[in-house]
Amino acid sequence: MQDTDRSPGTSPRVGVWLVGARGSVATTVVAGTAAIAADLASPTGCVTESPVFRGASLPALADLVFGGHDIVDVPLPARAGLLADAGVLPARVAAAVRPALEAADREIRDGSPREGEPQYTTARRLAADITDFRTRHGLEQVVVVNVSSTEALPDPDPAFLDLADLDKALATSTTLLPPSSLYAYAAFHAGCAYVNFTPSAGAALPALEELSRLRGVPHAGRDGKTGETLVKSALAPMFAQRALRVRSWSGTNLLGGGDGATLADPAAARSKTESKQRSLEETVGHAVEGQVHIDNVPEMGEWKTAWDHISFEGFLGVRMSLQFTWQGCDSALAAPLILDLVRLAALAHRRGESGALPALGFFFKDPVASTEHNLTLQYGDLVAWAGAGERTRLPEGAR
Amino acid sequence: MQDTDRSPGTSPRVGVWLVGARGSVATTVVAGTAAIAADLASPTGCVTESPVFRGASLPALADLVFGGHDIVDVPLPARAGLLADAGVLPARVAAAVRPALEAADREIRDGSPREGEPQYTTARRLAADITDFRTRHGLEQVVVVNVSSTEALPDPDPAFLDLADLDKALATSTTLLPPSSLYAYAAFHAGCAYVNFTPSAGAALPALEELSRLRGVPHAGRDGKTGETLVKSALAPMFAQRALRVRSWSGTNLLGGGDGATLADPAAARSKTESKQRSLEETVGHAVEGQVHIDNVPEMGEWKTAWDHISFEGFLGVRMSLQFTWQGCDSALAAPLILDLVRLAALAHRRGESGALPALGFFFKDPVASTEHNLTLQYGDLVAWAGAGERTRLPEGAR
Amino acid sequence: MQDTDRSPGTSPRVGVWLVGARGSVATTVVAGTAAIAADLASPTGCVTESPVFRGASLPALADLVFGGHDIVDVPLPARAGLLADAGVLPARVAAAVRPALEAADREIRDGSPREGEPQYTTARRLAADITDFRTRHGLEQVVVVNVSSTEALPDPDPAFLDLADLDKALATSTTLLPPSSLYAYAAFHAGCAYVNFTPSAGAALPALEELSRLRGVPHAGRDGKTGETLVKSALAPMFAQRALRVRSWSGTNLLGGGDGATLADPAAARSKTESKQRSLEETVGHAVEGQVHIDNVPEMGEWKTAWDHISFEGFLGVRMSLQFTWQGCDSALAAPLILDLVRLAALAHRRGESGALPALGFFFKDPVASTEHNLTLQYGDLVAWAGAGERTRLPEGAR
Amino acid sequence: MQDTDRSPGTSPRVGVWLVGARGSVATTVVAGTAAIAADLASPTGCVTESPVFRGASLPALADLVFGGHDIVDVPLPARAGLLADAGVLPARVAAAVRPALEAADREIRDGSPREGEPQYTTARRLAADITDFRTRHGLEQVVVVNVSSTEALPDPDPAFLDLADLDKALATSTTLLPPSSLYAYAAFHAGCAYVNFTPSAGAALPALEELSRLRGVPHAGRDGKTGETLVKSALAPMFAQRALRVRSWSGTNLLGGGDGATLADPAAARSKTESKQRSLEETVGHAVEGQVHIDNVPEMGEWKTAWDHISFEGFLGVRMSLQFTWQGCDSALAAPLILDLVRLAALAHRRGESGALPALGFFFKDPVASTEHNLTLQYGDLVAWAGAGERTRLPEGAR
Repeated sequence: MQDTDRSPGTSPRVGVWLVGARGSVATTVVAGTAAIAADLASPTGCVTESPVFRGASLPALADLVFGGHDIVDVPLPARAGLLADAGVLPARVAAAVRPALEAADREIRDGSPREGEPQYTTARRLAADITDFRTRHGLEQVVVVNVSSTEALPDPDPAFLDLADLDKALATSTTLLPPSSLYAYAAFHAGCAYVNFTPSAGAALPALEELSRLRGVPHAGRDGKTGETLVKSALAPMFAQRALRVRSWSGTNLLGGGDGATLADPAAARSKTESKQRSLEETVGHAVEGQVHIDNVPEMGEWKTAWDHISFEGFLGVRMSLQFTWQGCDSALAAPLILDLVRLAALAHRRGESGALPALGFFFKDPVASTEHNLTLQYGDLVAWAGAGERTRLPEGAR
Repeated sequence: MQDTDRSPGTSPRVGVWLVGARGSVATTVVAGTAAIAADLASPTGCVTESPVFRGASLPALADLVFGGHDIVDVPLPARAGLLADAGVLPARVAAAVRPALEAADREIRDGSPREGEPQYTTARRLAADITDFRTRHGLEQVVVVNVSSTEALPDPDPAFLDLADLDKALATSTTLLPPSSLYAYAAFHAGCAYVNFTPSAGAALPALEELSRLRGVPHAGRDGKTGETLVKSALAPMFAQRALRVRSWSGTNLLGGGDGATLADPAAARSKTESKQRSLEETVGHAVEGQVHIDNVPEMGEWKTAWDHISFEGFLGVRMSLQFTWQGCDSALAAPLILDLVRLAALAHRRGESGALPALGFFFKDPVASTEHNLTLQYGDLVAWAGAGERTRLPEGAR
Repeated sequence: MQDTDRSPGTSPRVGVWLVGARGSVATTVVAGTAAIAADLASPTGCVTESPVFRGASLPALADLVFGGHDIVDVPLPARAGLLADAGVLPARVAAAVRPALEAADREIRDGSPREGEPQYTTARRLAADITDFRTRHGLEQVVVVNVSSTEALPDPDPAFLDLADLDKALATSTTLLPPSSLYAYAAFHAGCAYVNFTPSAGAALPALEELSRLRGVPHAGRDGKTGETLVKSALAPMFAQRALRVRSWSGTNLLGGGDGATLADPAAARSKTESKQRSLEETVGHAVEGQVHIDNVPEMGEWKTAWDHISFEGFLGVRMSLQFTWQGCDSALAAPLILDLVRLAALAHRRGESGALPALGFFFKDPVASTEHNLTLQYGDLVAWAGAGERTRLPEGAR
Repeated sequence: MQDTDRSPGTSPRVGVWLVGARGSVATTVVAGTAAIAADLASPTGCVTESPVFRGASLPALADLVFGGHDIVDVPLPARAGLLADAGVLPARVAAAVRPALEAADREIRDGSPREGEPQYTTARRLAADITDFRTRHGLEQVVVVNVSSTEALPDPDPAFLDLADLDKALATSTTLLPPSSLYAYAAFHAGCAYVNFTPSAGAALPALEELSRLRGVPHAGRDGKTGETLVKSALAPMFAQRALRVRSWSGTNLLGGGDGATLADPAAARSKTESKQRSLEETVGHAVEGQVHIDNVPEMGEWKTAWDHISFEGFLGVRMSLQFTWQGCDSALAAPLILDLVRLAALAHRRGESGALPALGFFFKDPVASTEHNLTLQYGDLVAWAGAGERTRLPEGAR
């Protein structure tokens, strides 16, 4: 552990409640935290382990306690075995952290919907699971993190706009909120911070923003930036800064695993691809041709490959191009960011911040309450917010 | 012209003295400036034409007057024809700007060395050519820009460290300074700002820094960032900010044209490849495996292609990769930056700044007096320095 | 002209009747043939100009005479100007071949459908245009080539299966046959060979095969292999021969120009993408995951870029990958193959061959009457058929 | 085992003597053969397991017995552990085949040179190790396979041209032959077939060809075609067949592991890169610009990545390009080919063939006694030679 000045035992422990607790990302989070604590792995990819965050009052990784909801019952150690076969977890690590996986597995509760149950009742049941977890472990606080499969976005509904209307509707409706939003609702009622790592709706409804402020809890989201869009947010500002005109930006994403299958559903994919193109156009300042594809290629398993082709115009109209290929392991990219987000959301909660946290936009494709997509500026915002320095800015007018 | 509030005729004109005035880059600079003035082209790729620079007191493009030195005698209009055949200049543009090319061609002087002439004498001769140009055209100032072929770096010499020693040595030596440095010496003596767009030594010798301060003139350099390194400076910070460990970064550059041939000379290439790897390691904070190749592929002509392969490590040691391919036209990438640098150096000169200009690091692979390589931060520094806002910073400790 | 032993004037001339005569491909065909004849260009990309075809009795390029149908009225010289701007035709070539373009343009007839006209009547009218062209120019024969925009495939109809039924149906129907097939019907009635360079139905209906045999004329098609599929047909056999298991093959095609717009229509695209995946599976011998996308990116104009990602498995299940990016100019790739196909179809006609020509599969993505997709074997079949040697074979059982 | 009709025990067993027996490739060969025999893996990548080879009288994989020479003493099971960590061998396979690895390890003899020993004496000692192995195991024959590190090519020597001169020189010289050639000399003296999978000289010296014919043993080589050149030999014929002119072909190979380190030695690399460019020019029929780089990137371990950029010219001189990236695991690509070569060399030996085997060119970058580089034609030659059909040919004059 690099984190020697935050010794476990003396500092308050923080709960991590994973929605989708038996998925690849959650399993990697739990296994990785244990591996780091046992000095079997270094916290590579954990942004908050960088020296610049030393001064921030973040919970230690070793002080995190894991639980969650899921609707499948493959135990975490079995899931870790599959990840070892896929090359995500070294086999020796998977074996060594088995006790930690078993402990977390015992804290997973059934998140399946019950036939005919009004969503208000469901939310109370889910919240009770979380508060029980908090109480039994004597946790200072619990951060609820959505790492379950991507849902289709819900159709607009007036009840999404006002908390009183929402409360009323949930008393009878069994389907109004998509699961990600119902978990946000439950989390806020349980007094917990909420992080949405998926492109699902989550807390991004005005009524839920109202609830989070009412309950004094923060939330962050959405759609973890772990691949093509990460690279995009590093590259797109280059074209704007250099006054090169982006003519088209086309992308193809090949995904295996659960995410690939879910996003093959056009409704779910649309929410993801639209958000990708929007952030690009916000960066370069004009409309750009090109489409983004998300293909389900089951044989790719935990791995994803993205190819982007950018056609741009320079001096005297000369046309040039840039292509990139990103080959990454989804769980290995997401897991350390989950740990970062838990620590940062816990910090916000401790500080008494509530509502959306725009300073955490660095982690997301579609950041709540922020239109900044320049990765370096997002990073500066994050560091400043975390208390390690003052805010980074570009001079007014500069992108 | 977007630049309507800087009408030619009323504002002081600025000379641009191109060393290598008959090369592809210089030809594209002259032709492009005329094309923009005649509304035949938009100033795409000119950073200083972006709205954020509106407030800076930059000379108008239409107020630039061109001249220079070269050792070849292919006239500019003929060179422009070759560029039209290569797809760099639209044929109709090349035809339309012929008068401007002819005018600039008449201001090109022979820069060939004379057998046995001491370099001090040569420098005086070169400086006289420049001052004559300034006088005849009634120019407020002249900016000397090195766009000639890349030289091998000189072996270290004690005379490079002290101006008095250098002056003394030049009185007799015929070879001490490489041409790029001799032109800097001449420019400073002529009271001109100097920009080195090549990886050659140029003004990057302590004795020349001393001279520029003595004469009260600024300089900027070196090695224009127009391709692989530009992308690198946008991408490398991403890995550092995300705490992903770069294991290796390998690159291959395929270049045609004069630059390809020059850099096939291992001594010249070495200076270029070393500078590329150094800036990467400064960004990610540790040594990185990998080599950079520069291949001379004559058939590629004005075009260059760079392929980079980055292998990096994420959570739990999982290895992932990013590749990119950049396909660009060297002259079209360089020419608008030359215009930017001339305008910005002229601004610095007007303001009375002297010596190296670190705020212009945005344009260079190996910026003088700066180790900042994050493109967004360089951009913020530039905008702030140009007077359009305050400086961009990352909080202390953040890269 | 490399083709000195086939002097114009002494040998019979052959007509080329282009359906889509004012499109980019047709314009490039006419301009290129004239440029080669005038020694302004070499016949690069013309397979039948290779030494191995010297012995075949092919019409000389200089003996080809051009005409055709189209529904637009942009004259060929104007179209050539656009191609020059796009970098497909050198500007000096476009100017030099203007007389040839004008001559061909005078031979273009209106191919627009007439309100309420039965298709049988339309076909007679189209055939009359062709025979008039043949008669006026004293041509030995005319080859009709479809280079018009891709159509959606027609729904199956019993009249497609039998010539008598088809004749009967056309007497009254105004919409039964798609245009590509109606032109094939007209061509056969006019006693002409027919080549379908597009993925449209063309002559690939049993009733049309029957007609071509009845009239003693040959036909070839379909869907010219000029990019991604060309590379695929060179690469896919490698995996089969090396016993490497292809797990997925995914492709994205970025197209501008007319073809991009047409194929953005999902119905048209489907016929193209299905044919691409089918030929792959025929080569490797098993089902393969992956999708093929065809994106319309108008700004790419005449250029197309294809990226393919192949994931394969080797010894002990180790997963590896191959990616390729093809960047080509559609018209420059298609035009020389059109000339090849005209010459080869003329040869077949001279020899008295009728019906589908499987030996021309080398040129097509979806070859009629052939399931061979290995490019080298297709090449051997072609050369042997053309009379320059005996047939290439793999030993029985080898792919 | 797919190979059910060649049951072990009833058929004569064949020895495989690996020079470099403790390297990655050799370890993968031994482990893989055992894994296939135990039905833990399928023989993916073994060309001779394809149905077309069913009729050839090849030794069964289960009848192979392994031994060899090496100069390092890391035992095979330990080496297999490293390969499991690197993702080349599944961990469960490495564990299951431990007995087979231990058995092979007991048959490895020290191949270190002895101070001052004449090479003739060394060769006798090495040959005695091999014949002892053959005798003790009652093997029908032994195939010696060179999979050791790449050597620098020897300077020419008159003794390489004539066997009598070579014999005489070896009686006293301690350094005349490079190790790969000394092993070939020893193999032939022991009456064994010899396969050179490396770019080292091996049996490619006239005096050794003479010896192999004298002893009636066959040999094959050199330089296994497992990556960039494999793809090249599938792609380069496409350009020739389509009459597209290859302007430049540039390649960069990033290698880790032992091979990377060896080839970083410029002398060793030169032999490899020259052979790569030569075979390309033989295929396309003219000189081609471009360089091939082989970079040692130790962190890549067992993996290699090759990027190739091909610039070509089509109709009317239009320039287009193709790029590919190959990402492979060296040992997994080489091991099944070693098994193929052993079986095919054994077949040749049984048939009484001696000297170089050109029909095995399919497997090699620089095939002995053959200039055919078209992969499909090489495949046809191989299948025909193996007795499964008649020879594949292109008509005369066709490439």
